[in-house]
Amino acid sequence: MNRKELVDLIYRKKSFLCVGLDSDKSKLPECVLTKEDPVFEFNKAIIDATLPYTVAYKPNLAFYESQGIEGLVSLKKTMDYLHSFDKECFTIADAKRGDIGNTSQQYAKAFLSPESDFGFDSMTIAPYMGEDSVKPFTVYENKWVILLALTSNKGANDFQFTQDNQGTKLFEQVLTKAQEWGTKDNLMFVCGATQAEMFSTIRRIAPDHFLLVPGVGAQGGSLSEVCKYGLTKECGLLVNSSRGIIFADHSADFAKTAAQKAKELQEEMKTYLER
Amino acid sequence: MNRKELVDLIYRKKSFLCVGLDSDKSKLPECVLTKEDPVFEFNKAIIDATLPYTVAYKPNLAFYESQGIEGLVSLKKTMDYLHSFDKECFTIADAKRGDIGNTSQQYAKAFLSPESDFGFDSMTIAPYMGEDSVKPFTVYENKWVILLALTSNKGANDFQFTQDNQGTKLFEQVLTKAQEWGTKDNLMFVCGATQAEMFSTIRRIAPDHFLLVPGVGAQGGSLSEVCKYGLTKECGLLVNSSRGIIFADHSADFAKTAAQKAKELQEEMKTYLER
Repeated sequence: MNRKELVDLIYRKKSFLCVGLDSDKSKLPECVLTKEDPVFEFNKAIIDATLPYTVAYKPNLAFYESQGIEGLVSLKKTMDYLHSFDKECFTIADAKRGDIGNTSQQYAKAFLSPESDFGFDSMTIAPYMGEDSVKPFTVYENKWVILLALTSNKGANDFQFTQDNQGTKLFEQVLTKAQEWGTKDNLMFVCGATQAEMFSTIRRIAPDHFLLVPGVGAQGGSLSEVCKYGLTKECGLLVNSSRGIIFADHSADFAKTAAQKAKELQEEMKTYLER
Repeated sequence: MNRKELVDLIYRKKSFLCVGLDSDKSKLPECVLTKEDPVFEFNKAIIDATLPYTVAYKPNLAFYESQGIEGLVSLKKTMDYLHSFDKECFTIADAKRGDIGNTSQQYAKAFLSPESDFGFDSMTIAPYMGEDSVKPFTVYENKWVILLALTSNKGANDFQFTQDNQGTKLFEQVLTKAQEWGTKDNLMFVCGATQAEMFSTIRRIAPDHFLLVPGVGAQGGSLSEVCKYGLTKECGLLVNSSRGIIFADHSADFAKTAAQKAKELQEEMKTYLER
């Protein structure tokens, strides 16, 4: 999906909601556990319920890999299902990969290539290994790198705020340097909602790039704060909620509740888009 | 495998060689391509040929994931095969993972848990997201985190040498800080052989930790330079070669040549261990 298609999708659905399919098997509602592939059945129900309010889905690979090969089969089925809704949603492999050049090429092939088992629109990448670890993810047409800049977790404070001798923080260096490796048409940044006070700085360095924003909901970030500083005239945000939507209700009504939670966020997002 | 077992293995085989099973399907010798599972058959032949000279095997996940679910099946079979050589080799998932705490737990489960499809002894982790992204990998008994510190690629220069206002480089901060998260019994560091001039600095900060050293061979690093500054009285090194061993020969003699290349490195290593 290219930038224009993504922006069109956002204004059509009046939403910039990303639903995180962190479908931890140990937390699935009882009613899906009897199905042949509980993780896939859960995802399918969540997708069906939330699609009207949602522009992106983001399975975090860890929750599939932890189920071994069986988990990857559930992921493939989930992606096949998402592909059946052509242009109705953007897909993100939350994989946080990155390796030396020839190895990153293999990861890009694994997740972004149209011939792969998954064929995601984008994937998250860690910046620590620099240029040759990131650039191989920019070669597929209409596919995106989403580079970690400022993450939503406590450990973000360990290295990401380290200042160089000019006072530039590491996450700011990442935001600046990476713009030599990709453009606003194939590069986004992860910036956590728990760091909302940093969004004006982020927008000074990367005024037009899309930001993928985790941390709203279970992690405590505020949507209104993120929008206040992060929203651009082409939206420029994908705000993720995972546990706050998919695990809001563990009863047989889980999908209905997920739809309600997604709708609440979408309705709030609509007001920001219309300002 | 615990530290004592690893050190014993090294002195028994007089080797600290790690063979990187970066078994790129497009580079396999023709003679294995007709087999039902070419990647596994290739790995099995390489393992059989190199085991006398080798203390560790390191499949890089990218080369398996790029083959989709089929690739993960080949990896599982490879790991099952390696597990049949109990205490004869240490295994490393070169995965470079790392995510927020509850998600890193899932990655740890995927690769390190004895109940997982793979059951590696260790896995490589990226430090960018800090403490809560790393610590979940230290909870399994006799399993290891191998944290990226100074990598062997050109992109290492983009961020890893950034100095804070005390002149401390980012990779040095990682080496220091991570010692609050793990001990020399469950934490190693990745330090590239292409950065051999940095090994005296690395040993000043981490005198006793094992270092996993990629970059000898195809990437141009020198074994003697690495040993000059990196070797400790308990060895403290696992030096990896991938392409230089497994793809040294594309003929039907590939395994024999791999054994020869591994033996050459082991013989050189023996001289350093005996000094």
